[in-house]
Amino acid sequence: MGINRSLTGEGNRETLKILSEIADIKITEIPSGTDCFDWTVPDEWNVKEARIKDSRGNVIVDFKNNNLHLLGYSEKFIGKLNLNELKEHLHSLQDQPDLIPYLTSYYKKRWGFCLSHDQLQNLKEDVYDVHIDSDLNPQGSMTIGEVILKGDTEDEILLSTYICHPSMANNELSGPVVTSFICKKLSEKKNRRYTYRILYLPETIGAICYLSKNGKYLKEKLKAGYVVTCIGDKGNFTYKKSRQGNSLADRAAVLVLNQSEEHFTIEDFFPTGSDERQYCSPGFNLPVGSLMRTRYGKYKEYHTSGDNKSFISFEAMEKSAEKYLEIMNVIENNYTYINQYPECEPQLGKRDLYPTIGSKRDTSGIVNAMMWILNLSDGSNDLIDISDRSNVPVSVLIKAAEELKEKGLIRISAESI
Amino acid sequence: MGINRSLTGEGNRETLKILSEIADIKITEIPSGTDCFDWTVPDEWNVKEARIKDSRGNVIVDFKNNNLHLLGYSEKFIGKLNLNELKEHLHSLQDQPDLIPYLTSYYKKRWGFCLSHDQLQNLKEDVYDVHIDSDLNPQGSMTIGEVILKGDTEDEILLSTYICHPSMANNELSGPVVTSFICKKLSEKKNRRYTYRILYLPETIGAICYLSKNGKYLKEKLKAGYVVTCIGDKGNFTYKKSRQGNSLADRAAVLVLNQSEEHFTIEDFFPTGSDERQYCSPGFNLPVGSLMRTRYGKYKEYHTSGDNKSFISFEAMEKSAEKYLEIMNVIENNYTYINQYPECEPQLGKRDLYPTIGSKRDTSGIVNAMMWILNLSDGSNDLIDISDRSNVPVSVLIKAAEELKEKGLIRISAESI
Amino acid sequence: MGINRSLTGEGNRETLKILSEIADIKITEIPSGTDCFDWTVPDEWNVKEARIKDSRGNVIVDFKNNNLHLLGYSEKFIGKLNLNELKEHLHSLQDQPDLIPYLTSYYKKRWGFCLSHDQLQNLKEDVYDVHIDSDLNPQGSMTIGEVILKGDTEDEILLSTYICHPSMANNELSGPVVTSFICKKLSEKKNRRYTYRILYLPETIGAICYLSKNGKYLKEKLKAGYVVTCIGDKGNFTYKKSRQGNSLADRAAVLVLNQSEEHFTIEDFFPTGSDERQYCSPGFNLPVGSLMRTRYGKYKEYHTSGDNKSFISFEAMEKSAEKYLEIMNVIENNYTYINQYPECEPQLGKRDLYPTIGSKRDTSGIVNAMMWILNLSDGSNDLIDISDRSNVPVSVLIKAAEELKEKGLIRISAESI
Repeated sequence: MGINRSLTGEGNRETLKILSEIADIKITEIPSGTDCFDWTVPDEWNVKEARIKDSRGNVIVDFKNNNLHLLGYSEKFIGKLNLNELKEHLHSLQDQPDLIPYLTSYYKKRWGFCLSHDQLQNLKEDVYDVHIDSDLNPQGSMTIGEVILKGDTEDEILLSTYICHPSMANNELSGPVVTSFICKKLSEKKNRRYTYRILYLPETIGAICYLSKNGKYLKEKLKAGYVVTCIGDKGNFTYKKSRQGNSLADRAAVLVLNQSEEHFTIEDFFPTGSDERQYCSPGFNLPVGSLMRTRYGKYKEYHTSGDNKSFISFEAMEKSAEKYLEIMNVIENNYTYINQYPECEPQLGKRDLYPTIGSKRDTSGIVNAMMWILNLSDGSNDLIDISDRSNVPVSVLIKAAEELKEKGLIRISAESI
Repeated sequence: MGINRSLTGEGNRETLKILSEIADIKITEIPSGTDCFDWTVPDEWNVKEARIKDSRGNVIVDFKNNNLHLLGYSEKFIGKLNLNELKEHLHSLQDQPDLIPYLTSYYKKRWGFCLSHDQLQNLKEDVYDVHIDSDLNPQGSMTIGEVILKGDTEDEILLSTYICHPSMANNELSGPVVTSFICKKLSEKKNRRYTYRILYLPETIGAICYLSKNGKYLKEKLKAGYVVTCIGDKGNFTYKKSRQGNSLADRAAVLVLNQSEEHFTIEDFFPTGSDERQYCSPGFNLPVGSLMRTRYGKYKEYHTSGDNKSFISFEAMEKSAEKYLEIMNVIENNYTYINQYPECEPQLGKRDLYPTIGSKRDTSGIVNAMMWILNLSDGSNDLIDISDRSNVPVSVLIKAAEELKEKGLIRISAESI
Repeated sequence: MGINRSLTGEGNRETLKILSEIADIKITEIPSGTDCFDWTVPDEWNVKEARIKDSRGNVIVDFKNNNLHLLGYSEKFIGKLNLNELKEHLHSLQDQPDLIPYLTSYYKKRWGFCLSHDQLQNLKEDVYDVHIDSDLNPQGSMTIGEVILKGDTEDEILLSTYICHPSMANNELSGPVVTSFICKKLSEKKNRRYTYRILYLPETIGAICYLSKNGKYLKEKLKAGYVVTCIGDKGNFTYKKSRQGNSLADRAAVLVLNQSEEHFTIEDFFPTGSDERQYCSPGFNLPVGSLMRTRYGKYKEYHTSGDNKSFISFEAMEKSAEKYLEIMNVIENNYTYINQYPECEPQLGKRDLYPTIGSKRDTSGIVNAMMWILNLSDGSNDLIDISDRSNVPVSVLIKAAEELKEKGLIRISAESI
């Protein structure tokens, strides 16, 4: 039996504890009943046992076999029902008859079971024995995980992933796993220009609660952020833009995909989805997008028992983490430079930056990259802009800028430090 | 014989009287000789009789058979001419030899007849007897019709059509007919947000004269307007944008065509055409476009006797009026809303706006529509903007906005009342 | 033997003297050692003789046969070398084995020869006798040519071409030839609205030196400019935009190509190329583009002995000059007009600008052109804007504007005089 995660409960604590072995996660408990904006942290939900037996004592469905069998946040129930009475509490998918759906009822008290439509169809007239030993504790709390990796500045990059979906692989296990891997890599970096904030939250209520405490600060400091989800399957990358549409998060992600991937999808922001809904609500409008592989809602196994381990791969997750790190590397190196010799070209030759035999072809492309940087570094273009306009790979521009800076031909603009 | 309409004369009065049976039209007379900007209202023109006979007394062409036979604004003439002399006063279309052209000479005194090129070719050497009993009266007047339907605000929507083309169907009879039908429907509405101004004018001089009196006021109050012409044939819709190009008139018309029609044409503004030439002159630059079916100049029967009743249909005119009403309904309901819970999402579930079982699919699309409205209602987007960006049909957005407003989640922005 | 041109030297003086027969060029000498921004004018280079003989006295390569044989700016050298030693000073093109490359070493002292790869391959073990009788004179100077054609205003149009490439035809001989032809035509014009500045410079150092003296003035006065190069071959036109991207230079050139050529290429600015690199450096950012035929780098003969007279034609050069003159004619006539009758249309008929019989078709297009000018002349559109928006050929608009101005319907905006 997998760990049962939901908005609250022991499963979430256990999950964060396991991930703490990769990343140094600070765990915080927020008491049930805490108000955050228009919402309230719900009671803590824990489940000891949940199953249905037929009149002969055969177990029909059991939470032990698959967390998804129990409707999320089901209240305690012990009783006997005939088939018709029972059916009012059973949920299945007619058009995917072999899969168990993932359903929840966080804010209205009820109980229920989810099962395959095939199984539902085969249930016979009988008296069924339902036993749900669950607990909704108003004295409990909601658990969230947080890593802060300090950088040279207080400006921040955010990664946000969620931990409330029990036993699904692409959505959601891939998110926390990839995030933790990125977190580890970032923590090993010697110099970080930006401070990194990495969050493990129950979806929606977790993000809302977090923003009610930290939203104002993030509005001031956050330069780019990503919601990490659906990132473990073998599909091509999908980037969903932030509401701003042209934020640093968007520009870096789109540039890296353009310059490194053959097939990918760029989607404009839309207000359904995951926690970018909260980060990009109009009162915050943070620069938060989401790099995914096959996006939620775009694969038929989404929110069913079909989204299991066979749907994702470690190789895909590793490449996903690398792509995120590539994007963040661009952000780290994306300065606006000021050409110190703006009137005509500086003489590159006398600084050993130009072949001394004129008219020889520039095979490495580095001279071309330097010319672009010098020409566009008037204070209004950063390296991403220059890469967009020149089609010179940003990695070459970063190298060329380094050389030009060393020779004193450009300096970093005061505003972009 | 059809009613003979021109810039002035009894035919125009008669036409407006007939249309008054559908809409409550206020008729105004503007005296000949009145100056309006660079123009002067011409003498009133009336025709008793106009015909040509050959030497045997056979009637060759007669105004009684078709108004178009007489060159518009022909002066009185009685006399005998040989064929060559007569030909200097005859007009025909070489490339459409069976049609009578529509021609006028408003501002230079002359007389003439229009006839088919076939007939012209068959005229023999003879002495012809020409008899034009017309009157150009400097004591006359130009007749215009006007309907004002008061709304909750002084902000206005304009419909303008013209009544000076004798005996042509698509251009022009369809215009006044469709306009009158729209006018009737609007007058029956209980609540009108906007005040509607509906004009029946002789083309060009009528609009110029009207603007010389009301242009300043319209510049302040007019929010959207349309010139109604060429709207009765079976062709697909054509929308010609206002000079502004992105006025409320344009945005509403383009949105409705996009969301309801499969085939249609959007044309940028050009300064030839009908009365949008005056409304969109640079000194006024009013938000006035024109929804047509097959546009003037785009069908070969245009401005000939071929533009007759068989070219239009009542069914087409009815659908045209409905399309106009659909556009005006969008304008009436197009508010800029302000999300009252801008920080993160408000909790829709507790207000019965969200399914209480999470992850269930939103089949009606209404939840999706609400999410879009909440996300974009920061004061910079009206419902048309939101529909453009989300691809959610504006009718669904209007319904969703109504529900959100009722629940206190959004309010109408002060500027958009 | 062709004239040997380089950054400096007698060949450049001789070239300008020959071109002075077409255009009245003022010649200026700038002493070697003069500092200009980050650069210094080099020593004057002259060559008396340069050849290699084998041990039997056979001449292997000789500067007399082709200027390109000598590496540009080679220093004096007299000596004997074996094949391996010699090869360190020989340059060829492996992938174009029958052509002599064009190479220079302006800023690092060395000597060398360029020859076809075929010839290089056939050189045998031997002792070679090298004789380069060249002179690098620090007391010399760099020669530049300049023509100023005064106009009614101090606002300027610039043509800049270069004179430092020895014995190549499209790049570069076509440039000075076409420029001189344009210069002659412009000097014969009676009225010039703009002042024309026409420059013959050694590439890069010449432009840098010129800008160090005149850049500030040009920044204030220059309205449009073009670098004239690669303009003699039979290829279609290529226009490389200025860094501004939408300068008057760009708008006029793109419009003329759009309205007169079927096949052509528009390229966005890039910071490699010719002297637009200096004119468009960020400190100046002048409105300087370049109208070419087949662009440098786009034909395989570029910078080799294959770019010879058979690659260009006088007919092509003549048409190139005409195209430049066509563009400059548009610039001369491109005014922003102000409609003097902005409220509704002025009555064109009473000014003999409109057919007196209404509804007749406008065959010349001149009435349509007038309507466009009247409608858009609100002070925010010049004739190029109007031509872009209306698709009316700019030549027709120029004629229509002339008529409207004569009748007092429009006047030239104060800002565009």
